[in-house]
Amino acid sequence: MIQDFLLALMAIFAAAKLMGALAVRFRQPAVLGELIGGVVIGVSGLRWVDPHNETIHLLSELGVILLLFLIGLETNLGRLLSVGRAALSVAVVGVALPMIGGYGVGTLLGYSSTVALFLGAALTATSVGITARVLSDLGHLRDPDSQVILGAAVADDVIGLVILTVVSAIAAGTTLSVWGVSRITLVAFGFVIVAVVVGSKLAEHLVALIARLRVVKALFFGSIMFAFGLALLAELAGSALIVGAFAAGVVLARTKRGEEIEHEVHDIAQFFIPIFFVSVGAAVDLRTLSPIDPASRKYLLIGVALTLVAIVGKVLAGYAAGRGHRRLLIGVGMIPRGEVGLIFAQIGLSSGLLTAGLYSSVAMMVIVSTFIAPPLLRLMLPPVGGVAPGDKAVVLGEYAMDAPSDRPDGEDPGT
Amino acid sequence: MIQDFLLALMAIFAAAKLMGALAVRFRQPAVLGELIGGVVIGVSGLRWVDPHNETIHLLSELGVILLLFLIGLETNLGRLLSVGRAALSVAVVGVALPMIGGYGVGTLLGYSSTVALFLGAALTATSVGITARVLSDLGHLRDPDSQVILGAAVADDVIGLVILTVVSAIAAGTTLSVWGVSRITLVAFGFVIVAVVVGSKLAEHLVALIARLRVVKALFFGSIMFAFGLALLAELAGSALIVGAFAAGVVLARTKRGEEIEHEVHDIAQFFIPIFFVSVGAAVDLRTLSPIDPASRKYLLIGVALTLVAIVGKVLAGYAAGRGHRRLLIGVGMIPRGEVGLIFAQIGLSSGLLTAGLYSSVAMMVIVSTFIAPPLLRLMLPPVGGVAPGDKAVVLGEYAMDAPSDRPDGEDPGT
Repeated sequence: MIQDFLLALMAIFAAAKLMGALAVRFRQPAVLGELIGGVVIGVSGLRWVDPHNETIHLLSELGVILLLFLIGLETNLGRLLSVGRAALSVAVVGVALPMIGGYGVGTLLGYSSTVALFLGAALTATSVGITARVLSDLGHLRDPDSQVILGAAVADDVIGLVILTVVSAIAAGTTLSVWGVSRITLVAFGFVIVAVVVGSKLAEHLVALIARLRVVKALFFGSIMFAFGLALLAELAGSALIVGAFAAGVVLARTKRGEEIEHEVHDIAQFFIPIFFVSVGAAVDLRTLSPIDPASRKYLLIGVALTLVAIVGKVLAGYAAGRGHRRLLIGVGMIPRGEVGLIFAQIGLSSGLLTAGLYSSVAMMVIVSTFIAPPLLRLMLPPVGGVAPGDKAVVLGEYAMDAPSDRPDGEDPGT
Repeated sequence: MIQDFLLALMAIFAAAKLMGALAVRFRQPAVLGELIGGVVIGVSGLRWVDPHNETIHLLSELGVILLLFLIGLETNLGRLLSVGRAALSVAVVGVALPMIGGYGVGTLLGYSSTVALFLGAALTATSVGITARVLSDLGHLRDPDSQVILGAAVADDVIGLVILTVVSAIAAGTTLSVWGVSRITLVAFGFVIVAVVVGSKLAEHLVALIARLRVVKALFFGSIMFAFGLALLAELAGSALIVGAFAAGVVLARTKRGEEIEHEVHDIAQFFIPIFFVSVGAAVDLRTLSPIDPASRKYLLIGVALTLVAIVGKVLAGYAAGRGHRRLLIGVGMIPRGEVGLIFAQIGLSSGLLTAGLYSSVAMMVIVSTFIAPPLLRLMLPPVGGVAPGDKAVVLGEYAMDAPSDRPDGEDPGT
């Protein structure tokens, strides 16, 4: 029903913008307000919005795809590659430590090695969306250390999906050879490299071709179709949709009209991005965290253990970045698991590997890691004040910590 | 599935933009290309997009709501009221003649008076969306005669919905008193008047309040929530969602920040509007028009009769505008029935008033009237060439008949 849909959108936008404004007033990143706004109107609160409604869910997925596309458009490939080694080290260590820790927790508690493996896998992938939004909200997206976080988060998304494939195969009783695992890994990473290399050659022609179309917003529509196409190809290659969207952004940013594309995508992405963050918040079930019910207390304790592993593992991974970086900052930036952890948990639940109790332990780890990261990052990264009009570093325009800014492009002609 | 959703969006945008560009090349309004693009990928063609898919359907409804909101933002209330009398005359005659004609066709063919009444009712309402898009594509949205068309189309939407309520009640066996019918009519029209009067007082405060929110795009989100709210209230009052959205636009256009709101809504509406027009095209079932099947030939002939009544009735209604207007132009502008006619037909089908055969006759009337209007209007209204950058008359920015223009705001700094 269109009426229900309009009401749901009104609730989402009201929650996002009012709580976002409140968060900014308390000098926190706006995204924290959007997440909390989601909790307020979601399954733990007023239940005005059902995050599992098909349309809301699809729009929220579109939101995170557009967010990563936009982050890609903001990314300078050269700058990203210059921190590539540090990012890759952080990613590998940041996958290995939580994986081992989660496996350890599962084994100690007497779960089968498959279940323990799955628990470990669920701890691996950083939510690049949440981290990128926080960095952007604070006006620090283009800092070198932010580039390390971004690169590592994208890389551990790819690694995380390879692990998911492997663990799912093991769960299904399939035996995977070392060669099989290597092949999956190579294809997933190879896709990103091929996409960037081949895409960079094609993109300039594509942009030139689109310029000849005599319709308005041709550049915008051509660009998002390129992004959707690469996203779908990435998933076919065993990588994630958001990784493809990010690669598309990186490629298009290098064309002659990269800035124009970014400007146009920015405007429209603003509509969908809050739907994603409010949905993440709306899906949070706070009953998971209730210590009152004795039956759930066991899983609460497991959740605490998993959360500690999740946080400590990523913070330590930050130190893999090597000298010359703010290593603690990088580690903290890798903490939020967000939607990626929930996807793992849901697959575990539906495949029967995780019981409802273990699912809520994993969900608790996701909630705590997601909500703890924005204020921690805020403590370590003072928001950039007095951003110049049109400063391109402020991709999401949510930095406005000191001045209202709802003019197009974040410019405020009044100042 | 997000994958199917992305593929559907890619198909819709490709159809809209490629066929739109082709239409412009043949010096036709872009919207005609979008409608034909919809036919190509819809149920009569490649079947890439199912217009009845819930999410696509909701996004397409959102598209037409945003379109009417945008048209409202483009509308100067004073200018609209100055042609109010002409518009209302056109609306009343434009409802009465097709209603009587449709009833006559039904009665002559021996259908019951309820069915004949329903056939008449299905012929009444002009699709304000299609007409407004064509006028806007051609750069003539602000002409006085265009204001008559717009006002009349909005008014006959309100009248049409009153008729729908009454006819549905009759079909359900309820008897409605003259007082009952008057009350429904008064509430439906009264809503629009109250919304504009009360809304005008409230809107300035709302805009001032929103300006204090320290989040980006607060003005945009506040505005669309106002539009969604008025749309829902309009429907509760027996009017249509799009009438409420239009009223919201008219009201907000009069506030201090009307132009800013228009600019922001314009950018985001561009994403959803093509989904609406492609969906209208995609829902067209060309088999309805096939003369090969002898069983359907009878309904084809009924369709021809209804189409003639639909066209002649509205063209004659144009003459009710009185002297000083391009009366033929106004009549032609009222021809397209678009989605409104289809909604009538679907209600008739699901309530059992219309057989599948009669439904296809009505659908044929809708298809022909919708596709014939854009080229006819194009013949009578040469596209405005050399539009000044940022010319506000060109609300949808699809005027680009002579120059590619995909810069924000329709400006091309190169010229």
